[in-house]
Amino acid sequence: MLDVAIIGGGPAGLTAGLYATRGGLKNVTMFEKGMPGGQIMNSSEIENYPGIPEVKSGMDMMATWPEQCQRFGLKHEMVNIGKVSVNENGTFKIHKDDGTTEDAISVIVGTGSTPKRAGFKGENEFFGRGVSTCATCDGFFYKNKEVTVIGGGDTALEEAVYLASICSKVYLVHRRDSFRAAPSTVERAEKNPKIEMVLNSSPDEVFGDAMGVQGIRIKTKDGIKQLDTTGVFVFIGNDVNNGVLKNDDGSFICDVNEAGEVVVDLGMKTDVEGLFATGDMRLSAPKQVVVAAGDGSTAAIGAISYVMEKR
Amino acid sequence: MLDVAIIGGGPAGLTAGLYATRGGLKNVTMFEKGMPGGQIMNSSEIENYPGIPEVKSGMDMMATWPEQCQRFGLKHEMVNIGKVSVNENGTFKIHKDDGTTEDAISVIVGTGSTPKRAGFKGENEFFGRGVSTCATCDGFFYKNKEVTVIGGGDTALEEAVYLASICSKVYLVHRRDSFRAAPSTVERAEKNPKIEMVLNSSPDEVFGDAMGVQGIRIKTKDGIKQLDTTGVFVFIGNDVNNGVLKNDDGSFICDVNEAGEVVVDLGMKTDVEGLFATGDMRLSAPKQVVVAAGDGSTAAIGAISYVMEKR
Repeated sequence: MLDVAIIGGGPAGLTAGLYATRGGLKNVTMFEKGMPGGQIMNSSEIENYPGIPEVKSGMDMMATWPEQCQRFGLKHEMVNIGKVSVNENGTFKIHKDDGTTEDAISVIVGTGSTPKRAGFKGENEFFGRGVSTCATCDGFFYKNKEVTVIGGGDTALEEAVYLASICSKVYLVHRRDSFRAAPSTVERAEKNPKIEMVLNSSPDEVFGDAMGVQGIRIKTKDGIKQLDTTGVFVFIGNDVNNGVLKNDDGSFICDVNEAGEVVVDLGMKTDVEGLFATGDMRLSAPKQVVVAAGDGSTAAIGAISYVMEKR
Repeated sequence: MLDVAIIGGGPAGLTAGLYATRGGLKNVTMFEKGMPGGQIMNSSEIENYPGIPEVKSGMDMMATWPEQCQRFGLKHEMVNIGKVSVNENGTFKIHKDDGTTEDAISVIVGTGSTPKRAGFKGENEFFGRGVSTCATCDGFFYKNKEVTVIGGGDTALEEAVYLASICSKVYLVHRRDSFRAAPSTVERAEKNPKIEMVLNSSPDEVFGDAMGVQGIRIKTKDGIKQLDTTGVFVFIGNDVNNGVLKNDDGSFICDVNEAGEVVVDLGMKTDVEGLFATGDMRLSAPKQVVVAAGDGSTAAIGAISYVMEKR
């Protein structure tokens, strides 16, 4: 029986493991089929993690985390987890993809969310080198430069306004001629003098060189239009990686909102006792490394208390 | 008119400043009368801030933060803030101790909380060198060693149980012969074989040398008893530093609970629009640097959105 099973090896899972083991729990395993570090490993530059003043790649930034977080006894098992179920006595069962299972008193899930890709040419090739899905993370790298935003929902418009306060110009490329976003959000974007709407249009291809993106070609009603922006932000939604919390009938073992985010309180507790959710998958997540790490710390402190009560 | 006024220069305030300015806000001032860095600056060792693998003093750990957090335009004003009030139009007024005021569209407060000291001899002298007020932070430094806990409330008993999972023995020194804590908490502490109750007793003096604490002398009914523990944890309550949120009549400008903690949601929003609370002063704070920093990031992202809406 594990004290705590941690599902996911990003900043949230790693920090949860650090705190749970340093807090005295002996049997703590982090299940992560890949290299620990999480989605930030795909970023070419990060400069807003407080305490790391150097501008680093995500890969370099996370390089020291596994050693630091595992030095107190956290075990890492490289296997994918299919699902987590609740046993009759209130403990949890971790179902591994190799067909075996393991029981745990408490579970901390931090499997992240995956920004959707738009599917244009060059999008994957230049991801992290000019193509981004996070304005808070990468907007500043385009200070006083022109950028393109792809999307027409609330997030796309809000992020376009955010980028307009940093960048010299924001082209907003949207496939329809009207927006589904909240009217006040649409109005704020439309009246912003730095935002130029490119409607009834969709991205065709980003192009560039070894240094990154140099521009994007857009399919419009009147043919191809080229925007020479070195930053392209794609905001067309997120897939929350909540599959491990699904029952076989498609329902969830805990409260999940319409957007697929796990509902938690300030202690990262779900509505199921002993089950915590952290990082980008939880309600109202700002999707920042430092917040995910804070979530992991918070959840681990709660899990330690829960495990000591249950023993 | 400031876009954002940040009250307090600990990890929460610094990170809020980093995110608010990097997010494009031009007029952001952090009010902190002392050296930025916060309460962690008093710690002799920190090893659980993820991304900083070296064991460092709190002072060394925070040394790089002000430069990193101010490089995007955050201003630091070295003045104490007496109070924050709400103007008729919903903006805020920052009242400085020098008698001047400044208006701000949004305010992020992160003034921390101060653990109460018990008042025994040597307590201040050895604070951070054997005397601690945080089991999550410092418990691990006493792995398989004996420690003394001072206090008899819920926190003292919970932290004694936490320490018992790390340390070889925990003496719990309490001035009465019974506990006010919840019965289940008392039972859990009493049945823990590693916890020895030292009742009707109070600390008289910690003693040691340049390396730190070597023991503590306790006043008991039967005279002085000496415990040769190198760690002494004091849990007799916290003073939440919420004075800046007080009206002249002693009421608060926002929702504050019985313990004095500011009530916030997952976005660190108080019940007053545009006012955010972060770090150790807010509801359910785990009182960890990484969580406070995460709070600052969360609050700043919310404040940017609020400021852009209000403009």
